[in-house]
Amino acid sequence: MPQSTFEPSEYERRIEETKARMREDELDALVVADPANMNYLSGYDGWSFYVHQAVVVTADRDEPVWVGRGQDANGARATTWLSEESIESYSDDHVHSPYDLHPMDYLADVLEALGVADGRIGLEMDAYYFTAKSYTRLQENLGEATFADATLLVNWVRVTKSERELDYMREAARISEEAMLAGLETIEEGVPESEAARAIYDALIRGTDDYGGDYPSIVPLMPSGDHTGTPHLTWTDREFERGDPVIIELSGCRHRYHSPLARTTYVGDPPAEMTERMEIVVEGLEAALDAAEPGVTCERVERAWRDVISKYDIEKEERIGYSMGLGYPPDWGEHTASLRPGDETVLEENMTFHMIPGLWFDDFGVELSETFRITSNGAEVLADFPRELFST
Amino acid sequence: MPQSTFEPSEYERRIEETKARMREDELDALVVADPANMNYLSGYDGWSFYVHQAVVVTADRDEPVWVGRGQDANGARATTWLSEESIESYSDDHVHSPYDLHPMDYLADVLEALGVADGRIGLEMDAYYFTAKSYTRLQENLGEATFADATLLVNWVRVTKSERELDYMREAARISEEAMLAGLETIEEGVPESEAARAIYDALIRGTDDYGGDYPSIVPLMPSGDHTGTPHLTWTDREFERGDPVIIELSGCRHRYHSPLARTTYVGDPPAEMTERMEIVVEGLEAALDAAEPGVTCERVERAWRDVISKYDIEKEERIGYSMGLGYPPDWGEHTASLRPGDETVLEENMTFHMIPGLWFDDFGVELSETFRITSNGAEVLADFPRELFST
Repeated sequence: MPQSTFEPSEYERRIEETKARMREDELDALVVADPANMNYLSGYDGWSFYVHQAVVVTADRDEPVWVGRGQDANGARATTWLSEESIESYSDDHVHSPYDLHPMDYLADVLEALGVADGRIGLEMDAYYFTAKSYTRLQENLGEATFADATLLVNWVRVTKSERELDYMREAARISEEAMLAGLETIEEGVPESEAARAIYDALIRGTDDYGGDYPSIVPLMPSGDHTGTPHLTWTDREFERGDPVIIELSGCRHRYHSPLARTTYVGDPPAEMTERMEIVVEGLEAALDAAEPGVTCERVERAWRDVISKYDIEKEERIGYSMGLGYPPDWGEHTASLRPGDETVLEENMTFHMIPGLWFDDFGVELSETFRITSNGAEVLADFPRELFST
Repeated sequence: MPQSTFEPSEYERRIEETKARMREDELDALVVADPANMNYLSGYDGWSFYVHQAVVVTADRDEPVWVGRGQDANGARATTWLSEESIESYSDDHVHSPYDLHPMDYLADVLEALGVADGRIGLEMDAYYFTAKSYTRLQENLGEATFADATLLVNWVRVTKSERELDYMREAARISEEAMLAGLETIEEGVPESEAARAIYDALIRGTDDYGGDYPSIVPLMPSGDHTGTPHLTWTDREFERGDPVIIELSGCRHRYHSPLARTTYVGDPPAEMTERMEIVVEGLEAALDAAEPGVTCERVERAWRDVISKYDIEKEERIGYSMGLGYPPDWGEHTASLRPGDETVLEENMTFHMIPGLWFDDFGVELSETFRITSNGAEVLADFPRELFST
């Protein structure tokens, strides 16, 4: 399975594009600590990002080097395309160590052995799991090195997707549809939020008749009732009540690729005002989707949304979408292009975004999202799910 | 619900103990970025740790200050015990910003306003989500400040649990038992790993008749077949085969408190050698549990395990357990005391550990774990689950 997730040629292309960007930044080495970037370059896939680990790319080596904990080296052998000499692991006394040992001490030794300890080394300064301590320990160990901030270097390589990546995102979209249906069918008056979370998880992991689902990088979120203004609270045992608006945001996942989807439902008969607001959201989303095509900037797509809502005298400052795909907790976003004012990224074919506009008012919010791909002349929405306000 | 998760007096005690440690370290302020530590001090509970956020404790203020993203401020109002003047949030253009804005710029302003910008400020240098960039941006913004590494300061306060915390861990243990049963009942020849993951998740979220379950900080892990030597790979669509050993590690979760549990099963009739190895693991685990009581060191507990396995000419270098409880992805461990050689932490009543010894050989591994509390004179195991090698 892991061997066939992507062809060797795809990894080769990813490494080549990474190296091209390294050359632009005059980097002799790149230390990749973001688990999604590690997976992207090496194929590594394990829940081991709670300890320090990295993939190191050097200018003169064809394969990157996986560096991680001893007990995860077999996981690297099982899931990466790397040969044995490209897998380096530290002993367990480096883990949450009482001995003043840090995994970055070991990583510094690996960089020494690779001959780049006195070179210019790119670090993902703002990546998840690359802590402040990781940086200061590398500084202490490598007095001759020059460090450069290479935070989104690999993320920008990830922005345009291959056919195989798009296949996985489409598979994830099928799962997202099933999970959304399960959530909408479960939510009603008197049902605990946890019951809905359970139904959604069941569909997320069951997947389709052809494949099961992976764990998503973000748990299903279901802000409800007074809490639709608190988008990131997770489920509790609270029971849904008549008159609750409920926003469901979730994503199926295949081989760590996502296709997020959000819809809003209402427990009971929705007030006319809410239905009208949802119609505005749908009109704005569709205008933004219509604006998306190669050559157009991200901010131009957002403006299409804002032009629609301003007709209704509504203003909104949040971004309405972001580039995404491959991910590990805590996020499926890539942190590169965003659909918002000031983002001049030019859209290219096979970029993928999650567009998630919403409108919040004093007592409720409505939200509706789509994941889409930029085609040669427009946008392909990955999921097929009605765009409306649902009710129970 | 959030209001009653803990009494105000419990938060007051936590803040007092944190401040006592801050005084020892002569800190004027402490920036807490670990989501579990943020929850511990403020009650904050949301899936928003994919953006930068923190809780700031200052020597002269009764309440800490929550600092996060604008759209999460309502979540802070809903889940924390803090008053309105202790909730500070940054605008959305700080998020994955193309404008050279960073959330730590805003945090620096908050520290200025709190009058500690020229003081000695403790940082969780090695905490999840406190990135290298977070550190360098604070340095750039606060030229007059002195920074100190306060990585585990709050974690060490968390080491002994209150009665209410223990209640939640016991509730989590009930869920762990249900989930383990569901996993063991589902695994058999021809069943995909994802099917077992689905059954386990169903039990984890269903919980008991009295309460549902929260999402665990680590997904259920089920290394199987050749992969029992790869402890952190997650489920795939591979079907279990006759002759597969399968290790299940999972945890129920209540109000973010965990009670992990691991067992090993075998698809088919287990070979005698494997049953014997499991008996050694159980003997070693029980010897270590017997050794655990107040006044004894962590390394002494581990030695009891090692004394048993050395009788059978087995050596093992990995630690066999760690302090745990409250947690967010990617980990439920506290990164403080570990059961391993060299850890001289002295056990106290109401410390809680996950002891997870295992033995790996060339072609299979066996593992069995318990979560336990140090009582006034011994150890209380939280789950009630048979200690044996299971088979299908």
